[in-house]
Amino acid sequence: MTTNHTSLNRGFVSLVGAGPGDPDLLTVKGHRVIQQADVVVYDRLVSPEILALASPDAEMIYVGKQLDFHCVPQDQINQILIDKAQVGKRVVRLKGGDSFIFGRGGGEELEELAKYGIKYEVVPGITAAAGATAYAGIPLTHRDHAQSVQFITGHVQKDGREIEWASLAQPNNTLVFYMGLKQSGHISDKLITHGLAADTPLCHYRKRHSQGATGTHK
Amino acid sequence: MTTNHTSLNRGFVSLVGAGPGDPDLLTVKGHRVIQQADVVVYDRLVSPEILALASPDAEMIYVGKQLDFHCVPQDQINQILIDKAQVGKRVVRLKGGDSFIFGRGGGEELEELAKYGIKYEVVPGITAAAGATAYAGIPLTHRDHAQSVQFITGHVQKDGREIEWASLAQPNNTLVFYMGLKQSGHISDKLITHGLAADTPLCHYRKRHSQGATGTHK
Repeated sequence: MTTNHTSLNRGFVSLVGAGPGDPDLLTVKGHRVIQQADVVVYDRLVSPEILALASPDAEMIYVGKQLDFHCVPQDQINQILIDKAQVGKRVVRLKGGDSFIFGRGGGEELEELAKYGIKYEVVPGITAAAGATAYAGIPLTHRDHAQSVQFITGHVQKDGREIEWASLAQPNNTLVFYMGLKQSGHISDKLITHGLAADTPLCHYRKRHSQGATGTHK
Repeated sequence: MTTNHTSLNRGFVSLVGAGPGDPDLLTVKGHRVIQQADVVVYDRLVSPEILALASPDAEMIYVGKQLDFHCVPQDQINQILIDKAQVGKRVVRLKGGDSFIFGRGGGEELEELAKYGIKYEVVPGITAAAGATAYAGIPLTHRDHAQSVQFITGHVQKDGREIEWASLAQPNNTLVFYMGLKQSGHISDKLITHGLAADTPLCHYRKRHSQGATGTHK
């Protein structure tokens, strides 16, 4: 069988959630498409062990995305995906965790690909909340203690929107703040002010590459 | 190398999230431990394709768990895990989705294993909300539309607790109701009564084996 990776109709983008960092926690499918990729476009939170799965021939494009600094602007990331797919490459867009749970730009990237008629797929990943609590042995929901779980961005003040603290400060709801480590004190204060019991258990989780997830588990 | 699977100190339980059903969406680690298991203790929502990964020599124990009918009571499931691990078996406890996100009994099972000094690990899985929205191309969070996402049990009336509808009916928060298909009309009515816009987009997701996830995405 001969394959021609540069033929136009083979261009394809897989939006892959890289999970918490351990290659063992990639999905089977995510693992495979990384190995088969011609081009890997990756964020800061993707671990070196996962990047090492790519073929030595693959083109590796770092597009950054730090907490307060976007190394490559979103429209430029979109353009890279489009350009590479349009010349027939198998492109993997790799984000930490899951692309659709605080995988910033995930929705925008798909919209752009659709606009250009580029074929894509979404391969979900283990989101930080699930990865961290699996290692810590803390259930996110529990028959007796939490009938719901909520993931919230910890970028509380940056985006100008004030969080509805009263609606978060509910019993029987586990709260997980993504990227909330810096704001941890502020978040606790606000929740307690709005009625959450001051003795609500709290767990901090800090990942390598300084990704943070902060959880309160009632 | 010789191995002795029946030696006491090898007993071990892996609590594995089986994800949405496609074996390709197992984690690499989950896939491996299922193949290596001596005993697989599984729920109704685990797909036949995933069960087929187990060794032909593995003992397969079905413990049911349907919406309104627990085929095997929780304390009996705990006892099976303990008994098998105590005779040195590598046990995989398989649940649909993620064991810690509405993986009923996940917390209780770990508590029991810890009580008996049995070694265990938790292998996270792709939760239904992430799996379903990946296939549908619907982000759970979005810079412009949803700064948080909340997973809620759709077993609204059964457990006697009334949901805090007002706290759920917030803008910029994606709601995902697990096992909410039967209650879908009731849930919509309650949310609208408590202030959610009546034109909030809604997406139903129904899995084989009639697992349901219902989401509203604002």
